[in-house]
Amino acid sequence: MKVSILGAGNWGTTLSIKLSSNKKEVALWGRQKEINEIKTTGVNKTYLPEVVVPSIIKITSDIEAALDFSSNLLIFAVPSQALRDIARKVGKLRLKADIILLSVVKGIEVGTLKRMSEILLEEIRCDPSQICVLSGPTIASEVIKGMPTTAVCASESRETAGFIQSTFMNTSFRIYTSQDVIGVELGGALKNIIAIASGIIDGLGLGANSKGALIARGLAEMTRLGLKMGADPLTFAGLSGIGDIITTSISGYSRNRFVGEQIGKGKKLDEILSSMVMVAEGVSTIKSAYKLSKKYDVPMPITHEMYKVLFGDKEPKDAIASLMGREPKPEMY
Amino acid sequence: MKVSILGAGNWGTTLSIKLSSNKKEVALWGRQKEINEIKTTGVNKTYLPEVVVPSIIKITSDIEAALDFSSNLLIFAVPSQALRDIARKVGKLRLKADIILLSVVKGIEVGTLKRMSEILLEEIRCDPSQICVLSGPTIASEVIKGMPTTAVCASESRETAGFIQSTFMNTSFRIYTSQDVIGVELGGALKNIIAIASGIIDGLGLGANSKGALIARGLAEMTRLGLKMGADPLTFAGLSGIGDIITTSISGYSRNRFVGEQIGKGKKLDEILSSMVMVAEGVSTIKSAYKLSKKYDVPMPITHEMYKVLFGDKEPKDAIASLMGREPKPEMY
Repeated sequence: MKVSILGAGNWGTTLSIKLSSNKKEVALWGRQKEINEIKTTGVNKTYLPEVVVPSIIKITSDIEAALDFSSNLLIFAVPSQALRDIARKVGKLRLKADIILLSVVKGIEVGTLKRMSEILLEEIRCDPSQICVLSGPTIASEVIKGMPTTAVCASESRETAGFIQSTFMNTSFRIYTSQDVIGVELGGALKNIIAIASGIIDGLGLGANSKGALIARGLAEMTRLGLKMGADPLTFAGLSGIGDIITTSISGYSRNRFVGEQIGKGKKLDEILSSMVMVAEGVSTIKSAYKLSKKYDVPMPITHEMYKVLFGDKEPKDAIASLMGREPKPEMY
Repeated sequence: MKVSILGAGNWGTTLSIKLSSNKKEVALWGRQKEINEIKTTGVNKTYLPEVVVPSIIKITSDIEAALDFSSNLLIFAVPSQALRDIARKVGKLRLKADIILLSVVKGIEVGTLKRMSEILLEEIRCDPSQICVLSGPTIASEVIKGMPTTAVCASESRETAGFIQSTFMNTSFRIYTSQDVIGVELGGALKNIIAIASGIIDGLGLGANSKGALIARGLAEMTRLGLKMGADPLTFAGLSGIGDIITTSISGYSRNRFVGEQIGKGKKLDEILSSMVMVAEGVSTIKSAYKLSKKYDVPMPITHEMYKVLFGDKEPKDAIASLMGREPKPEMY
């Protein structure tokens, strides 16, 4: 089987190595800078310095060359706000008629409020049954070390989801299938909002009770929005929802949690982002979710407070006080 | 309002102090040892050494004296396997006809597989509408410091749940109401199994991806059992379910996580338990849940593996390998 991966960040590079060790023929496309680095040093220094990229993997900065490969599977692993441009380029190329398109991107397009798989469908001629999404608690630096990891792949087509499951699964990477594409994608995107908020709790030193409460109430507001958008609410209680929230909210490697922690300690957003190499998807997801909560008329108090902290002038500790000080409520409403 | 609290462990003592600061008249009953310690030093050294118990709280080792008080609210904060004995003693005393009975105990009776509120109903003559349970991510040492904390109180009667909400709520302790007594009690009990398993992951050094996966899959098996037992599945996605799981699984203060961590490091259960002052409820809950999964014919692979590790001779790392190596599955079934 031939696999092309677009995006040589830490997740795209990790997947290229894992699939190669699962005996797939892999091509990895990235920007000139990363590709040159890998070509000259054997290592993706900027995004995945821990490991050598095996020379059996074809690396290229030319999308057509990556696809020239007559791929059976095309994986998108680029930043969410860059996906449309890249998908549009792919849409102009000749693909195998039965190619499977897999998004591993966690975000929502800010301008259109579209999910990643919706963008693929709009930009590349294919049937919805050819599209799949993969999400879950998958910190790349742990996956690359072979530490036990799980994820869920969702497609309208059971067959497509089963194909992805058998392509990725091995003794240290366990894959579950689902047909709830909307739920899996929304969970993967929205959890980064909660990860930023968790980081703020860390930065303010507020403790484990607060973090447990934040995550449970964050899950509630994600689920409320998901229901209105057509997701199965139980998906949010699964690997791509709560599983990913937990991992992102406790891991020292999470960029989104890191952004929140710095904000909790009093730093300004611009200052934090300009010091980071990688994209913290949660920052743009807060904008998208803020708009979605208004569009669908769903109360999302944590998202709204995070919006005020990141894009207004609200102090983090005042945001927490606002969340604690709301009128008494039943848990579900 | 007059409140009697039975159990001077760290949670009973914490609640006595919080309710006293909420302007309630409070009596606290405990065993001779704790009561003597508080009387002579002003501090519950064994269970809550950080804080002085205000002298305005009546402390006693005589249950009748604690109740003589003509209480409006009676709180049970004793170990789960001791609740029936104490409730039986209370059942022989004269209580106010409209007294509210509140359980804050997180466990399941091993012999009968009864929930705590069921034991109260069996041992004390009252109407189900007089019974309430309180659960959630409430590590005592954070609550006592006034760090932001939330919990959920559930009663068949909205009025009773509302009464508990208004009795406990203040700016640092936010209470939600629910009518799902079964779900809130099961969540509070079963989460300790996941906390022990999380500790094992810490002890083995398996990382954040594993912990996220464990918690999500643990939530799934708790929810499956709860559904069969009559709970609302969404309750497990709330504060008393996932909220409490997260807090217990990340907190350095959690006794259940501690037990798991020691097991992960190779210690034997007897050795660990004999070194602890406080009860780790999860140990008996693993026995109860193991029996419940057979009684209700619900697959609970994590609980079963934990049972084999704690009460069989299975090595923790082999239990994790068994969980990762199961046949490929859809996420929900």
